[in-house]
Amino acid sequence: MDSVTTTQPLGGAVDDLVAVVPAGGIGSRLWPLSQPDRPKFLLDLLGTGQSLLQGTLDRIAPLTAEVMVVTGVAHAAAVGTQLPGLPQANILTEPSPRDSMAAIALAAAVIEQRHGTRIMGSFPADHVMREPEQFRESVRIAVDAARTGKVVVIGIEPTGPSPAYGYIHYGDRMSDVPGASAVQAFTEKPDVDTASRMLAAGGYAWNAGMYVTATDVLLAHLERLQPTLYAGIREIAADWDGHARAATLERLWPTLTRIAIDHAIAEPVAAEGGVAVVAGSFDWHDVGDFESLASLVPADADGVTRINRSATVSTTDAQRTVVMGGSKPIAVVGLDDVVVVESDEAILVLGRSAAQRVKDVSAPQ
Amino acid sequence: MDSVTTTQPLGGAVDDLVAVVPAGGIGSRLWPLSQPDRPKFLLDLLGTGQSLLQGTLDRIAPLTAEVMVVTGVAHAAAVGTQLPGLPQANILTEPSPRDSMAAIALAAAVIEQRHGTRIMGSFPADHVMREPEQFRESVRIAVDAARTGKVVVIGIEPTGPSPAYGYIHYGDRMSDVPGASAVQAFTEKPDVDTASRMLAAGGYAWNAGMYVTATDVLLAHLERLQPTLYAGIREIAADWDGHARAATLERLWPTLTRIAIDHAIAEPVAAEGGVAVVAGSFDWHDVGDFESLASLVPADADGVTRINRSATVSTTDAQRTVVMGGSKPIAVVGLDDVVVVESDEAILVLGRSAAQRVKDVSAPQ
Repeated sequence: MDSVTTTQPLGGAVDDLVAVVPAGGIGSRLWPLSQPDRPKFLLDLLGTGQSLLQGTLDRIAPLTAEVMVVTGVAHAAAVGTQLPGLPQANILTEPSPRDSMAAIALAAAVIEQRHGTRIMGSFPADHVMREPEQFRESVRIAVDAARTGKVVVIGIEPTGPSPAYGYIHYGDRMSDVPGASAVQAFTEKPDVDTASRMLAAGGYAWNAGMYVTATDVLLAHLERLQPTLYAGIREIAADWDGHARAATLERLWPTLTRIAIDHAIAEPVAAEGGVAVVAGSFDWHDVGDFESLASLVPADADGVTRINRSATVSTTDAQRTVVMGGSKPIAVVGLDDVVVVESDEAILVLGRSAAQRVKDVSAPQ
Repeated sequence: MDSVTTTQPLGGAVDDLVAVVPAGGIGSRLWPLSQPDRPKFLLDLLGTGQSLLQGTLDRIAPLTAEVMVVTGVAHAAAVGTQLPGLPQANILTEPSPRDSMAAIALAAAVIEQRHGTRIMGSFPADHVMREPEQFRESVRIAVDAARTGKVVVIGIEPTGPSPAYGYIHYGDRMSDVPGASAVQAFTEKPDVDTASRMLAAGGYAWNAGMYVTATDVLLAHLERLQPTLYAGIREIAADWDGHARAATLERLWPTLTRIAIDHAIAEPVAAEGGVAVVAGSFDWHDVGDFESLASLVPADADGVTRINRSATVSTTDAQRTVVMGGSKPIAVVGLDDVVVVESDEAILVLGRSAAQRVKDVSAPQ
């Protein structure tokens, strides 16, 4: 990416970029840290002193001062508290979850309503990236590609044949935007064998749900592909900053089609040749479960990984212990690869390789 | 034992028996339930509503109303609280631990001082027996053997080649006391291989530290074998119920030889032919660690063993979970044979097969 020419000075802000941050999802595999009133994006999972949401806004800040957070009504107050610098008007509150297309289209339509056409980048609130300048450089290239009328997705370089993500199949390089390529197709989450074959073949990236596009391009695709959803969103956005917002939301929001942006726009538009991909070769993690969280924090000298924890942890005949949270001394004896998580609500004792199964216990608690 | 003739009616009390209950030992393999101010014998380990000490006195009660508890100064108040029916004078408080010979000899000498010669039975405070009438029947036979001038030990029928106990080697049957035999020798705690050979050979029992003997017999052996300890104990006992107790204790107690009754009396007297053994074929447990404790409590319908616990325990992909104490919901995911113990002080996460290692963590906490 060293030789890329951008329309903005390298490393600077992008004048007409609005960042949209969808802040949703409980993170049920991170129970009991995550709770209905304390979803993953509000948590300081890594013990850095910042929630994932706060980290996301810090990462975006050098690109643009114009940020919109789209979140559920249950979390709007907490989002405002965590982001005191964000104008209240830039927290778009959804009355109920209607999946990512409604959230992102609402942001696009409100942006157009307020500012006219802009380039928008949508970046989920619950990712961890530890090379923020490399992330921003990918976004700058994506903005260049978006200016040509493409819907642009940032493709994450796979670190293994993960079955947890959808995959992006690279097509030809774009001649007019160095660093960007056409998307040949999107692939649903594969099984591990299929993913392994894809990685061996080459030319695939993970789809992390980061899209950059001009608002008018996005909304034109929506009008064509999901006309009912488009009409509802346009009507809601027209009333958003006026007295009728609540009534219009109440009338229309429950009728909106529940669909992900991947299915509503990315996949059909890619089939028409309208989607581009920019390689994101930065260190990226969605921190979906305790296994991936534990892998992000180095162990202390005694071999124990401590996250958000000050009380004693002692181990006897126990390798690779991970302890998160909690204020009581904990001893682990005679067990390897154990994760112990203590929250105010509950204690989880987890075999690290079963981290995916945590979602099965969070519901009945 | 059905055909045994005793000097007391079968099933009744023994008029001249005084029961002595040494109540000492922290139970460090039961941390964090056990604590310096909350030793094993004060704990309701099985969730029955009774501490092990209370269970011990209940078990003894049909044999005799005369019970003496010997305990450390730190625990005397708690013993009194747990045993409101026990006269304060029958709690013998040791200023510091001097091992079992001093504790039992003190009780013997105080009994003689108060009542003259009696048969005494010494029964540790921290055992669990769930067939109390069979225990008492063994004690009645042991009392008969003790009346012939023997030091009598109750031998526990081994359930396996445990390296945790000393072993008693049976000699010839006593012709005058049906159900009792001579002790050929005591064996120190063996390794598992040696214990296996002993069990294969037959004629061995575990030594659980339960002795029955006339006080004058015990004290005469002590005078001969440990004359200094004997002299100190006699002088302390003479002052026990008078004004000089504290001063005499302060002067003499720290000088007493630290030695176990097994080494001081049982082993040398057995070599002289003066020790008898009565088979205790009742269900007996010393509940030394969480493995043995867990084996005593049946699992609930969901496969989880809950002890002293009311809050939720849920398991996912986890077999044979054991949870003790604690008031927070606990979930165990992806781990088999895990014991989770929560006390006010700490949380222990233990692989059941490592139960012996718990003593290594209790100290530094």
